[in-house]
Amino acid sequence: MPVTVGIDIGGTGTKLGLVTDEGDIISRVEFNTWDFPKFNEYVGELARSINSLLKSGNQGEPVGIGICAPMGNYFKGTIDKGYNLPWQGVLPLRDQLQGALGIPTIISNDANAAALGEKVFGVAKDLNDFVMITLGTGLGSGFISNGKLVLGFEGFAGELGHVNGKKPSGRLCNCGKKGCLETYVSATGIKRTIFSLLADSHEGSYFRTVSFDDLSTKEITEAAEEGDKIALEAFEYTGEIFGGKLAEVAILFNPEAIILAGGLSKAGHFIIDPTKRHMEDNLMDAYKGKIRFLSSQLGSEGAAILGAASLVRTLNAELI
Amino acid sequence: MPVTVGIDIGGTGTKLGLVTDEGDIISRVEFNTWDFPKFNEYVGELARSINSLLKSGNQGEPVGIGICAPMGNYFKGTIDKGYNLPWQGVLPLRDQLQGALGIPTIISNDANAAALGEKVFGVAKDLNDFVMITLGTGLGSGFISNGKLVLGFEGFAGELGHVNGKKPSGRLCNCGKKGCLETYVSATGIKRTIFSLLADSHEGSYFRTVSFDDLSTKEITEAAEEGDKIALEAFEYTGEIFGGKLAEVAILFNPEAIILAGGLSKAGHFIIDPTKRHMEDNLMDAYKGKIRFLSSQLGSEGAAILGAASLVRTLNAELI
Repeated sequence: MPVTVGIDIGGTGTKLGLVTDEGDIISRVEFNTWDFPKFNEYVGELARSINSLLKSGNQGEPVGIGICAPMGNYFKGTIDKGYNLPWQGVLPLRDQLQGALGIPTIISNDANAAALGEKVFGVAKDLNDFVMITLGTGLGSGFISNGKLVLGFEGFAGELGHVNGKKPSGRLCNCGKKGCLETYVSATGIKRTIFSLLADSHEGSYFRTVSFDDLSTKEITEAAEEGDKIALEAFEYTGEIFGGKLAEVAILFNPEAIILAGGLSKAGHFIIDPTKRHMEDNLMDAYKGKIRFLSSQLGSEGAAILGAASLVRTLNAELI
Repeated sequence: MPVTVGIDIGGTGTKLGLVTDEGDIISRVEFNTWDFPKFNEYVGELARSINSLLKSGNQGEPVGIGICAPMGNYFKGTIDKGYNLPWQGVLPLRDQLQGALGIPTIISNDANAAALGEKVFGVAKDLNDFVMITLGTGLGSGFISNGKLVLGFEGFAGELGHVNGKKPSGRLCNCGKKGCLETYVSATGIKRTIFSLLADSHEGSYFRTVSFDDLSTKEITEAAEEGDKIALEAFEYTGEIFGGKLAEVAILFNPEAIILAGGLSKAGHFIIDPTKRHMEDNLMDAYKGKIRFLSSQLGSEGAAILGAASLVRTLNAELI
């Protein structure tokens, strides 16, 4: 049975899995990314982990290795100054790992891998034009147009999190700019909105008893379920900014569906309803009432590994 | 020598030309679109004009017919309620003309055809990721990503003119929405800006002697050349809104170049300099200093016919 190796490189852990053609993860392993502050040793550990996975699964040579990483660059096969990673500079991970193991290797960033993962293994198997959006600490996005990943000239396309969400000024973003969409629309963004609303009003709220660092997206959803006005207003405000921007995305890409994943997407109708309403309000007739909102069904545990594994399909399918 | 027929259907005239593989227009003809208020008779006139073009050029069967029209839909082969055209409803132009002449026929909207025209015949022959923007009465745009036209699910992708240019409110657009980019960034948009600046200031200006209907883009450029402060401020304001939005386009599509055409693009450095500066100011480091601004070299007379003719290449090349 042909398998691929999916690797999810994150700021805390590195997760590896063996993935079948049907999208089942038959074995997996993980280790702490920061245990290997020297990049060469990290690549060595990756190679060892892959070999031990293949041995444990009684597998022969896999079809390929797919890697998703912050700032992973598909064209160059590098990680370009990835956020929260121990190593500096531009790291030629693809060539090093491919050199060490002799197995075809592909790299991309998390969001592009997530989009391809939905196309190959997830809810987007039958869709050729869609946008995948992950609402976590930031806002990650990947665009599929005409069945293919939109990469752009240097592989930096599809960064919806950093288009402007609020003119003329706006919240400071990690990227150094102000007003980026993810400073409003993400798990962190809605927390910032909650605290801004607390500052601007006298409204009593559960959130007056919680610190910024302690507040979770789950608590915001729970407070909304109990009718907390600040929570409800925060969802409305987030949906207004998100929906307005998705209308622009719809006009530029004419997608059939928008797929949501990540912590804030678990708020379900609290986030989807205002977002959809504001998106529709900003659309011309030709676009109205046509775009579906879907939720990723890959599961938060396996989605990244499956997304990474799906990159291997670009070796011989027309996905890029 | 293989030729294609390029047809540009506009609100005043319909222009047809025979185009060689090198992009030379070897013969052409035009007639008044409004002379044929009945659609069937219009199609009949198109067929007659094509036959007479082929006869006059001593041509045999052409490879195909490409048509650009307002709201031309590539997938359906129809014109969907095109602006300024005499006919109502959804018109199956492709099938009717193909039925009448037995020649493969392709339809698209003006902006997509213009983008493909630059790829096939113009300044974008070697580019695979670029945006074509026509700054005329409105703002038309076509996106090429990974060498292919971005069409979207139903063929409505790439309408940059109708993304929001000014939040929270903005100028009323022909499409019924408020604040669309083309209400600021187009030949009409900069006229509106001139009149808004005249209203807001006491600044003396050439424009105080001209009516809205009489004012041309050429006069705005000439006034800027003579140091008219209102003209210079209008270009700066237009560039701020255009550049801010192009930064978002750059983050979503990562293009190598932006190609400008249309009346307002003739203002040259007056429009390009502030646009480029504001675009760069809104970009993250990975995108800065990389995007070229190019001007269409196809000539305003022939560009639409060449764009239409280039659509025929989609019959057997991987352009869509």
